[in-house]
Amino acid sequence: MFNKILIANRGEIAVRIIRACREMGIATVAVYSEIDKDSLHVNLADEAVCIGPAKSKDSYLNMENIISATVLTGAQAIHPGFGFLSENSKFAEVCSECNITFIGPDAEVMSKMGNKARARQIMIEAEVPVIPGVDGVLDSYQHTEKEADRIGYPVILKASAGGGGRGIRIVHKKEELKKAYETAKTEAKVSFNDDAMYMEKFIENPRHIEFQILADNHGTVIHLGERDCSVQRRNQKVVEEAPSTIISDDLRNRMGEVAIKAAKAVAYKNAGTIEFLVDKNGDFYFMEMNTRIQVEHPVTEFITGIDIIKEQIKIAFNEELNMSQNDVTFKGHAIECRINAENPYKGFRPSPGKISLVLLPGGNGVRIDSALYNGYKIPPTYDSMVAKLIVYGDSRIEAINKMTRALEEFVVEGIETNIEFLGEILDNENFVSGNFDTSFIAKEFNY
Amino acid sequence: MFNKILIANRGEIAVRIIRACREMGIATVAVYSEIDKDSLHVNLADEAVCIGPAKSKDSYLNMENIISATVLTGAQAIHPGFGFLSENSKFAEVCSECNITFIGPDAEVMSKMGNKARARQIMIEAEVPVIPGVDGVLDSYQHTEKEADRIGYPVILKASAGGGGRGIRIVHKKEELKKAYETAKTEAKVSFNDDAMYMEKFIENPRHIEFQILADNHGTVIHLGERDCSVQRRNQKVVEEAPSTIISDDLRNRMGEVAIKAAKAVAYKNAGTIEFLVDKNGDFYFMEMNTRIQVEHPVTEFITGIDIIKEQIKIAFNEELNMSQNDVTFKGHAIECRINAENPYKGFRPSPGKISLVLLPGGNGVRIDSALYNGYKIPPTYDSMVAKLIVYGDSRIEAINKMTRALEEFVVEGIETNIEFLGEILDNENFVSGNFDTSFIAKEFNY
Repeated sequence: MFNKILIANRGEIAVRIIRACREMGIATVAVYSEIDKDSLHVNLADEAVCIGPAKSKDSYLNMENIISATVLTGAQAIHPGFGFLSENSKFAEVCSECNITFIGPDAEVMSKMGNKARARQIMIEAEVPVIPGVDGVLDSYQHTEKEADRIGYPVILKASAGGGGRGIRIVHKKEELKKAYETAKTEAKVSFNDDAMYMEKFIENPRHIEFQILADNHGTVIHLGERDCSVQRRNQKVVEEAPSTIISDDLRNRMGEVAIKAAKAVAYKNAGTIEFLVDKNGDFYFMEMNTRIQVEHPVTEFITGIDIIKEQIKIAFNEELNMSQNDVTFKGHAIECRINAENPYKGFRPSPGKISLVLLPGGNGVRIDSALYNGYKIPPTYDSMVAKLIVYGDSRIEAINKMTRALEEFVVEGIETNIEFLGEILDNENFVSGNFDTSFIAKEFNY
Repeated sequence: MFNKILIANRGEIAVRIIRACREMGIATVAVYSEIDKDSLHVNLADEAVCIGPAKSKDSYLNMENIISATVLTGAQAIHPGFGFLSENSKFAEVCSECNITFIGPDAEVMSKMGNKARARQIMIEAEVPVIPGVDGVLDSYQHTEKEADRIGYPVILKASAGGGGRGIRIVHKKEELKKAYETAKTEAKVSFNDDAMYMEKFIENPRHIEFQILADNHGTVIHLGERDCSVQRRNQKVVEEAPSTIISDDLRNRMGEVAIKAAKAVAYKNAGTIEFLVDKNGDFYFMEMNTRIQVEHPVTEFITGIDIIKEQIKIAFNEELNMSQNDVTFKGHAIECRINAENPYKGFRPSPGKISLVLLPGGNGVRIDSALYNGYKIPPTYDSMVAKLIVYGDSRIEAINKMTRALEEFVVEGIETNIEFLGEILDNENFVSGNFDTSFIAKEFNY
């Protein structure tokens, strides 16, 4: 096994990885920016190296300094966590050139999956269902109408050069198509000076369902079931759970097989996630692949009993997976809440600052992945997520009740947090009944 | 279900019970002594009632005040936790007279099991193996020699009126018997003015193995497997684990059946524990029955997935157990360390005082049952146990590694704790190899 691993990240995920390494008898090197010198991950690691000023580009995104720290400390591998350099294929390449094991897939695969158009094309070729759409731009209104008939309404028109929601129209029936086509085109021309348009099926009120994949270097690929991440605010996940209330055993098996097929199509290695949209009919569509550990991996760990970070490290060390698909069983229900330093009632504005008191919940079935401590000063520089609260129950309702009491116990003073808002979500009757989709927070809370 | 439960306890077990109640939608009433007014259990409960001055006899043992608090707040049941009034049959009786449900067995059963001689007699009649011995006192040396031959060496001679280790002799072979008999008798006469002696088989280096029992009010009794509590200091458990390294599936089944037989012999109801001594040959002997929840119940919860406190409450509400023996399965390995406010290197002297900083470990497979918080002032009045750290791993070695890293993370400043000493136990090669018995701490650490 590796003797020493450098963790190229900060916050709770750095702490998470350090803990896994310690349990495996692997020495750890933390890296930190100047503003993070008193962080928990720095304190818990065996060694710590400052890699530059607070700004991410100068430190956590500074490949040169991170590679230097690795060489200097004699670490044999780098775990990138999520965010920062975790999906940067260039970084994976540099690691490889320096004879450092990058704990993740090959640079080439990362690069392929990072390009959405290319990833879509690969999945079509692998017969993985993607959102039906027009490949390439629309030539004319006649072409658009013909394609819309083929795809089936509702459809969504998007400016090829688009972004920020401009040049987009959702069309529910044929009679609305012409006007929508023309106004979207005009808007795109004005906004992007480019009126090229493409079109795909509009998935109404989908669920965000993702499958966790483990793939070793020896050709074995398994899935660890799904996570339901439909509770989102502006595409940011807020509450995640496993299993999903809408996934039957049969659908899980079918989607799991497709997820494995998707991973195999690119000879994927290490842990990864295939994200799908699932519509009301249970039809599912490949959205994207995340070539790294996910924030919400603990819910899968709770229901499968598999430590995904440890598996990542073992795979990177070239070990064979010591389980087959049949060994993966699911038990109970897990929910994760992301604890953010922000004020939901004031536009979710970030709330950095010094924590004067923190009281973490505990007890049976409660897991805390956190970087908080009394007196910790949350810097204004990075992501506002400061902890994750994950609970396990025999049933979904038991997990909801457990999360509710754990949120009630959770005290953070000195900064503002979203803990109360999370409590409102858990208490929402549509959440409790499983009647929600990606529009849930916008609809129920107007956020 | 009950609407409201009063918790007649303090510290981490009160917090544990409050959490279970909240998850079940049951309102909670905490009781507290004057010195405990700022305790975590007071803060977490829905209501809190002061029941008297700091001294246990004036508050946590004050039946009248506790019953008054129950009546006053309209609580329908009392959970006694462990210690204090939990094994007081009088208290159970008073509850019953006041139409309050005592969450535990009937007063009569508590009384029977609380009397060791009577419990032994009941077990003999039920054909539960007890430590072979002489029933009653020894008449003469001739009688003693004959009985020793029957029981088999080694034997232990004990003064009937004994205590404090006086009037006790362990005899390994016949040639030593006469001298031991005479000196013990003399010592007993001098110490207690009573030279009556009895004798039982001396179990050399036994393991302390206990079985968790659940029995509903409708005749169903199941066991939840064993806990190994052999790591003790002066009969105080320090580290507990489940399963035990010395219990094979076959032995577990046999001991489990005996434990169920023991519980049935007294028509036991609610959660209880049958404690056995197990010798080197795998022969086991009934020691005593604890008619309450045990400190170490979380290790069983980890490997069975059963919430024992919730089961206690459901049983007390007259519900039928919703599982049979075959539904109880065991997975993985769990270890608990008792975190005490004491200094092991200075004779384990208690170390009450104000906690200036506490940093609890967390992450995958770590459970904290604690009453600690930053600024909490541990009173000098009660037991020194202030938290329990419980971990779960796929295997025993993974659990040991996890406990080790969790202990390393655990920071408590302002008082002294046994955290470092616990680390030494977990690191001891005889502990790691499973080669230990109840003499472990005395032998390895001279404590």
